[in-house]
Amino acid sequence: MLGIDPGLVGTGFGLIEPGAGGVAVLDRGVIATSADLPLEARIHRIYDAVRGLLVAHAPTTLVLEDLYTEYRFPRTALLMAHARGVVCLAARQCDVAVLALAPAEVKRAVAASGAASKHQVQHAVQRLLKLEALPTPSHVADALALALTGFSRLGGVLR
Amino acid sequence: MLGIDPGLVGTGFGLIEPGAGGVAVLDRGVIATSADLPLEARIHRIYDAVRGLLVAHAPTTLVLEDLYTEYRFPRTALLMAHARGVVCLAARQCDVAVLALAPAEVKRAVAASGAASKHQVQHAVQRLLKLEALPTPSHVADALALALTGFSRLGGVLR
Repeated sequence: MLGIDPGLVGTGFGLIEPGAGGVAVLDRGVIATSADLPLEARIHRIYDAVRGLLVAHAPTTLVLEDLYTEYRFPRTALLMAHARGVVCLAARQCDVAVLALAPAEVKRAVAASGAASKHQVQHAVQRLLKLEALPTPSHVADALALALTGFSRLGGVLR
Repeated sequence: MLGIDPGLVGTGFGLIEPGAGGVAVLDRGVIATSADLPLEARIHRIYDAVRGLLVAHAPTTLVLEDLYTEYRFPRTALLMAHARGVVCLAARQCDVAVLALAPAEVKRAVAASGAASKHQVQHAVQRLLKLEALPTPSHVADALALALTGFSRLGGVLR
């Protein structure tokens, strides 16, 4: 299960797999792109990195946040959507199912409240995945939260 | 010179080439996607079609409208940006330069007014390209207008 939190500056990802001792984190991080590069080069970098993850780990599902329309920064949202487009493309090309979840559903699944703060989500992800440190930046915590919620939605048990 | 007007429902394209008798239209049309398909399949269809055009015709430049942020329909704009993202990716993968032009610059270049209506742009494109009929739908006219403006920006003469 691969959670992705797309963004042009930084795309968070978190890859989890259920195991005997609970859910394990196989990989997590941020795909960062430099503002010095033209848009198409940045988009290409994100596509390449996501495709690399899909090819290396062959997850069953890629989990994204659903689109909503009350973005505070319209330009940032439009650039995020460029990144989200190539993430969807990579999933399709690799035959990986795409699951889009509402932000409130993700917060409720991991932190027991649809209105949980970023900090509460980070703490909940740390607890559920038994991580030694708080997952940072929040892009990574959000990606892991998406993966955990996708796992739960498909029948897994979070505890 | 390939002009692209991305949209999830319909992506307009117009491919022009300067010749002895003026600028000729090599290809034009709309890449349509069905609302019955999941987003990632629609995105993939747009990517495939644009990539096909780039491979078949090897244009020097792909011309898009620049992003702006006062979209009347935020959700439509976000979905357009998914399509725009994979168009940029295809250009990058095919080593085709991307040129983004402000909507007002395009209207000024083809219709002599930055505030030209869609109908005026269609008429101007018909006249400049000596088309027998008005280019429709407006997605196609817009894509041809982008290509014409890109051609003019890179030193070509419109008349």
